[in-house]
Amino acid sequence: MNFASDNTAPVAPAILDAIAKANAGYAHGYGNDDWTSGVERRLCEIFEREVAAFLVPTGTAANALALAHIAPPWGVVFCHTDSHIATDECGAPEFFGGGLKLAALPGDNGKVAPPTLQTALAGYGGHSPHQMVAAALSLTQASEAGTIYRVDEIAALCEVAKKRGLGVHMDGARFANALVRLNATPAQMTWQSGIDALSFGATKGGALAAEAVVVFDPERAKFFGERRKRAGHLLSKHRFLAAQFAAYLAGDLWLTLARRANAMADRLAQKLTALGLQLVWPVEANLVFVALPRALDAKLKTAGASYYLRPSEGLRLPADRVLARLVTSFATQEDDIERFVNLCKNF
Amino acid sequence: MNFASDNTAPVAPAILDAIAKANAGYAHGYGNDDWTSGVERRLCEIFEREVAAFLVPTGTAANALALAHIAPPWGVVFCHTDSHIATDECGAPEFFGGGLKLAALPGDNGKVAPPTLQTALAGYGGHSPHQMVAAALSLTQASEAGTIYRVDEIAALCEVAKKRGLGVHMDGARFANALVRLNATPAQMTWQSGIDALSFGATKGGALAAEAVVVFDPERAKFFGERRKRAGHLLSKHRFLAAQFAAYLAGDLWLTLARRANAMADRLAQKLTALGLQLVWPVEANLVFVALPRALDAKLKTAGASYYLRPSEGLRLPADRVLARLVTSFATQEDDIERFVNLCKNF
Amino acid sequence: MNFASDNTAPVAPAILDAIAKANAGYAHGYGNDDWTSGVERRLCEIFEREVAAFLVPTGTAANALALAHIAPPWGVVFCHTDSHIATDECGAPEFFGGGLKLAALPGDNGKVAPPTLQTALAGYGGHSPHQMVAAALSLTQASEAGTIYRVDEIAALCEVAKKRGLGVHMDGARFANALVRLNATPAQMTWQSGIDALSFGATKGGALAAEAVVVFDPERAKFFGERRKRAGHLLSKHRFLAAQFAAYLAGDLWLTLARRANAMADRLAQKLTALGLQLVWPVEANLVFVALPRALDAKLKTAGASYYLRPSEGLRLPADRVLARLVTSFATQEDDIERFVNLCKNF
Amino acid sequence: MNFASDNTAPVAPAILDAIAKANAGYAHGYGNDDWTSGVERRLCEIFEREVAAFLVPTGTAANALALAHIAPPWGVVFCHTDSHIATDECGAPEFFGGGLKLAALPGDNGKVAPPTLQTALAGYGGHSPHQMVAAALSLTQASEAGTIYRVDEIAALCEVAKKRGLGVHMDGARFANALVRLNATPAQMTWQSGIDALSFGATKGGALAAEAVVVFDPERAKFFGERRKRAGHLLSKHRFLAAQFAAYLAGDLWLTLARRANAMADRLAQKLTALGLQLVWPVEANLVFVALPRALDAKLKTAGASYYLRPSEGLRLPADRVLARLVTSFATQEDDIERFVNLCKNF
Repeated sequence: MNFASDNTAPVAPAILDAIAKANAGYAHGYGNDDWTSGVERRLCEIFEREVAAFLVPTGTAANALALAHIAPPWGVVFCHTDSHIATDECGAPEFFGGGLKLAALPGDNGKVAPPTLQTALAGYGGHSPHQMVAAALSLTQASEAGTIYRVDEIAALCEVAKKRGLGVHMDGARFANALVRLNATPAQMTWQSGIDALSFGATKGGALAAEAVVVFDPERAKFFGERRKRAGHLLSKHRFLAAQFAAYLAGDLWLTLARRANAMADRLAQKLTALGLQLVWPVEANLVFVALPRALDAKLKTAGASYYLRPSEGLRLPADRVLARLVTSFATQEDDIERFVNLCKNF
Repeated sequence: MNFASDNTAPVAPAILDAIAKANAGYAHGYGNDDWTSGVERRLCEIFEREVAAFLVPTGTAANALALAHIAPPWGVVFCHTDSHIATDECGAPEFFGGGLKLAALPGDNGKVAPPTLQTALAGYGGHSPHQMVAAALSLTQASEAGTIYRVDEIAALCEVAKKRGLGVHMDGARFANALVRLNATPAQMTWQSGIDALSFGATKGGALAAEAVVVFDPERAKFFGERRKRAGHLLSKHRFLAAQFAAYLAGDLWLTLARRANAMADRLAQKLTALGLQLVWPVEANLVFVALPRALDAKLKTAGASYYLRPSEGLRLPADRVLARLVTSFATQEDDIERFVNLCKNF
Repeated sequence: MNFASDNTAPVAPAILDAIAKANAGYAHGYGNDDWTSGVERRLCEIFEREVAAFLVPTGTAANALALAHIAPPWGVVFCHTDSHIATDECGAPEFFGGGLKLAALPGDNGKVAPPTLQTALAGYGGHSPHQMVAAALSLTQASEAGTIYRVDEIAALCEVAKKRGLGVHMDGARFANALVRLNATPAQMTWQSGIDALSFGATKGGALAAEAVVVFDPERAKFFGERRKRAGHLLSKHRFLAAQFAAYLAGDLWLTLARRANAMADRLAQKLTALGLQLVWPVEANLVFVALPRALDAKLKTAGASYYLRPSEGLRLPADRVLARLVTSFATQEDDIERFVNLCKNF
Repeated sequence: MNFASDNTAPVAPAILDAIAKANAGYAHGYGNDDWTSGVERRLCEIFEREVAAFLVPTGTAANALALAHIAPPWGVVFCHTDSHIATDECGAPEFFGGGLKLAALPGDNGKVAPPTLQTALAGYGGHSPHQMVAAALSLTQASEAGTIYRVDEIAALCEVAKKRGLGVHMDGARFANALVRLNATPAQMTWQSGIDALSFGATKGGALAAEAVVVFDPERAKFFGERRKRAGHLLSKHRFLAAQFAAYLAGDLWLTLARRANAMADRLAQKLTALGLQLVWPVEANLVFVALPRALDAKLKTAGASYYLRPSEGLRLPADRVLARLVTSFATQEDDIERFVNLCKNF
């Protein structure tokens, strides 16, 4: 019953196989290999345009490199209060960005609403050079609350951002989980709606350690290679990073894995709801947030269930409830859900 | 005939197996797994003392994190002119170190000699606060010239450094290749001689992407975890990084792989010498530097040999010679050496 | 009728004279002059202990250097939402601090309350290394709202901070204005209450461009000289910076100037109140915040009054009111106040 | 007999008067005053084109801000081995530049020769992204050796630089001293020869603390204001900075002061030569470098002469000689020269 994170899951077998298959003979280092160029082509295909892509081993690296690339050191990056870049990356955006600033915005269901951004932006400009400069917006898709921005929501946010000259970044650590929920293409969910740079995650989806920064306008990617290298994020045996991505993106694997993870979250959510437990946010990706009675939480932990509690200020939960985050993945088994749900009966 | 680099080689089978074996079930992320604690224990064993260890995916990350940890932003880090940190990391030490400065020192055979360091240090101090502060020494073991510091050489350099309060870092991307040449223990080659922090490489030795920063005094490692995290170098599925290291360090594998690589370099060197070709530096690790006639270089390249040429200023090679760097690895086959050497006959 | 800022005022005559007097003959550069050592001694006297002091030309420099000195790049600095470091220094703390983060805390009357700090701190720790580390508290004395922390308030905040290992900085751009309101010594208002580093401002008080960073424990000032130099804040003709401070601190000048500024604020506040205008915050230093009818604001501006409006969200002003900030200084004339107040009659 | 530095000299009387005159009434802060706009206009006049200009209090700030503006964090800035940015600014360029690197080039008479630059540049490019990127050239005019680049030398260096896409910076801490030696205009010595950004010094020339960064293409100055502010280099009572510059540039004062300083250097040099002492470099500005017998050095110091010795490696001075740097200024008196020279007789 491991619902701690999608990164506690193993590597999807097809991806592990790809690593093993790539382990034949010699290959040029640092991305000058066939796996890498193959991934680059595949990303162009998936996004239906020329893109520049840079593989890195972690999502934190992808986010921080992307943000530093689109925002100057005196720039302000707007993001949701609960976004990973604001809460869980130990200041990576600030470090890579030479001292840029994150401005955390509130928002229901883990999402920033266009009027909130607009109001925040109204506080910038007109006080140069004393105030930092509104520079970028970072959206998390799927969000940390397990919700999803609709394509028109992304477009609306990007419109607000673009009117003020901001670049827009998407943290897509769970990009596939979001995509398979929407009746939309990768292109529609990104550049066609105004996204400039994407952290395209594969690790949570089933890879070992593989993320891509996708810069939709290749012209804007100049010197990104240097930026990655000097951050220590250019792998020497790069073929093994690329092979993961190649396998992940081959055919529909990435979508299949994401559908599986999402389906498990749906199943879990439905069963918990049926028991009368209260979901805190809509389940739209592979995360289920549920208000658990403290006693039940203790019982579940004792029984070996693994998951994290989250701060719940502002959610007005009853005093005897805690906010549990249950994460599913491609590896989640129905059995595990069954056992977990059974433990929740008669709470 | 691939002698381009030890990072063009594949992953050693035992290490790949270990990755596959680690792929069973769930594991806590971010290093809170059994593989990681096992590696930490193993490193204490190998170095015969309590150490703090931090795994990262690249040597550039290991070096830059280590240097930033032992030198302040106004610090000068002394290193050899040809050191990787000075020539090949696109300013990673300067970036991680908040603008620290590398002072490149000349030195025969790719090594810094104690008097050279002493002379350089004489130029520091006494001009505070106008001048940057002598802060650290970084040694490369084995060196970029394929040579090796003897234990007493390391001790002598550290003594010079310590007298001036410098921290000492060892770039051990080819740590094992050096170690197996010396009649010395890992402890003798490092902290017992004065090394404070080590970049302990496994990637060139046969791993997929695995390096460790070893801080010999655990007290000095405070906040290194934060430093690594905010650089994006804490892997979420950390067990796969640790599993590589665990396999690499299990029994004598790491030493066996290094001995194999070194033996191949010896063999290549002996055969080239026998043909009358001139080695430029002593072959003490897994790198062979040879002065090739331009025509032979062309012939070899045409025949499919893969290797890099290096700048040769200061070496006084005849005008018709180029400096070729031939790197062997655990994967190098005797056949390849044979073919290469045969092509060199009658040059 | 200039109430725009205390930095629109001229230089106090005694300070200008001191600059002129210092202009005789040669003096060693970079602080190796008698004026500088005199100021250092005088600061020890004023603070009743050995201190280390570093003069710089701007308050932004003083704040950013001080914060970078007491907080690491992965550190969080707690400060009031309206603090100058958060709103008006274009990211100087983040830049000097290598990407540190300001956590802005709300607080009535421009002041942080100990429980607010305590609550904020409760959100830190326990999530290492993913979260930035609570590292420092910065208090503004007098605050941007023109209010003053009492000595026991400072002590209470420092106690909360110290329990968590935080360093404490005081932004004393208006240090003298605060001090003369309190029945307290400079020592009591700072290190005896727990302050580690002080930005001691003279510019707003009557100097041309002179601020001091005072580090109360001289041991902790190591390499501050290098930090200042590499930020470009070590003046070559340093005697002229020191001469300003020497004159400012000679006898009671600094206190006299501050009393004058404060008295003018009192006078202005009393007269505006008498007219029925509403003061928004208590007037405790040299700033008066008043809710002006828009029509009156227009009338005053037309008549040549100079002052700034401030955002007033959260203050629940009537819709037809704006929040005006009126700043007095040592140079404010009673006539100006008279004219301003007369314009306000029958608003 | 103070020949220690031109910054040990006092402020030129006309500049001090200007400060005093500026001290009447109120003025907007942060450069929104008439003195500042006047200086901006005057600089356009002097350089015969629209320029963007930013006043700062120190030369280190001017240099570091300018370099950070024209070179990225992964950029290499070429400069002379003895340049102030390389030896005396405690890493300010590296700090402001986010970890950029200075590549120090040798050169006779303190000057970089075009072939030296060309050779250095040949070592860059072709190794992306491993190597830092050749990004800028910084020339010191007058040089630290007291010599001067001729206009055609500047143009030749800029041509080499521009072919490789480098930006070019001039450190003009002694800009006026150089200019008055040449039969050239400020425009010819800078942008017409290819200079992109100039640190235009007034402090050494007679100001209290006043330097300007002049960006010749105003389009390239975007966000320089933010850059200066977040470095703490935007003075609040900015009028006093601008007033210094206004006075310095009014009429021919700046040229007159520089001619005076240069003439004193010439006089000193001629008299020392006449005594048989050996000048080390041509005297072209206000610096005289002379090889002094150690005994004479001791005698001069005992007699109260103030000057610095410089390292003399590479100069092949006789063992009993030291390299003395004698700096003159607008304030140097003929009497002082007479006394100094008399002491040198019969050495």
